[in-house]
Amino acid sequence: MIKLYYTAHTCSLASHIALEDAGAEYFTERVSFKAKQQNSPDYLAINPKGRVPSLVTDRGVLTETPAMLAFIAQTFPRAQLAPLDDVFAFAQVQAFNSYLCSTLHVAHSHRMRGYRWADDESSFADMQRKVPQSVGACYALIEREMLRGPWVMGDAYTICDPYLFTLAQWMEDDGVDVAKLPKVADHRRRMSERSAVRKAIADELA
Amino acid sequence: MIKLYYTAHTCSLASHIALEDAGAEYFTERVSFKAKQQNSPDYLAINPKGRVPSLVTDRGVLTETPAMLAFIAQTFPRAQLAPLDDVFAFAQVQAFNSYLCSTLHVAHSHRMRGYRWADDESSFADMQRKVPQSVGACYALIEREMLRGPWVMGDAYTICDPYLFTLAQWMEDDGVDVAKLPKVADHRRRMSERSAVRKAIADELA
Repeated sequence: MIKLYYTAHTCSLASHIALEDAGAEYFTERVSFKAKQQNSPDYLAINPKGRVPSLVTDRGVLTETPAMLAFIAQTFPRAQLAPLDDVFAFAQVQAFNSYLCSTLHVAHSHRMRGYRWADDESSFADMQRKVPQSVGACYALIEREMLRGPWVMGDAYTICDPYLFTLAQWMEDDGVDVAKLPKVADHRRRMSERSAVRKAIADELA
Repeated sequence: MIKLYYTAHTCSLASHIALEDAGAEYFTERVSFKAKQQNSPDYLAINPKGRVPSLVTDRGVLTETPAMLAFIAQTFPRAQLAPLDDVFAFAQVQAFNSYLCSTLHVAHSHRMRGYRWADDESSFADMQRKVPQSVGACYALIEREMLRGPWVMGDAYTICDPYLFTLAQWMEDDGVDVAKLPKVADHRRRMSERSAVRKAIADELA
């Protein structure tokens, strides 16, 4: 049985949606950032990084969203969440998710978590001012070069879609002009109508 | 035929080593950061992100080191560069590489590329001061929790090894105290003795 440790409004939603998409049997446990549970000894024993998400499996714990999403796709191949029989197409899926993880999410994190990379209040304010531009540039690239439509990889829904949808929740708070991103906005709207997405979000906010 | 676009002293070395490890037929082309080639129209037509590495294949272009490394492992399965028949073990490989990409490399980038996330000189100086701590914390976690030894994933050499080796080139310049990281230092030394590593580095510096 699979167990997902998550925190609402974080990137753990991507794996939560993918588990729903996969038809997986799983349960979830909330990690409260407010109570700093991610740094508790109990949680650090599960994930020494002190971050969400964590996926507990029969074989051990997995972390890092791109790895977890590929794991879900490979563990539940009937759900066809990635082109598992096409090495190049699978690599394209992975490249997209890696970009979200290491560039888009990182740019976003400079709005609230500047303390990871600096110490001064003036630096945090500077970083916050830059977020609309740095995050906006990522979305402009996705809009122009990456999002094929209707899904990220074209006609086939993949593990790229819940991940993009999850990060796209934060566009307005990041000061990104969504009106300039019609494909991303349309993708987000269509994703929000899927039952798997509704169920995952409802579970997290319950 | 595969073509790798690389820049010396960057993370493209990881894929370069993996291509050697795989026994792949490939050729390379240097991208000069000094001449700002990564932002030239010709290069942006290959990789609109304006970054290295890029891997040109018969099917199209791939970017993002974790995706490229998994692609190389899957394209050359006889080289046994990843546990391709074990979904969980493969996910662990991917989680390690995702951590390098989105946490360790990102922390390092704040030493030289703070302009991605801020605008003020004082912020850049603040970020630079923090790099020994932020990058050092990543290596401490790798030393304590991740590097099983002798290779990252234990007895089997995988695509995690060239990636860790590549980023570990920068430890001293990042102000990390290597003496506190005996396993990481030993891994780097053993990697540096491999013929594939020597060949890739020699090619890049020729």
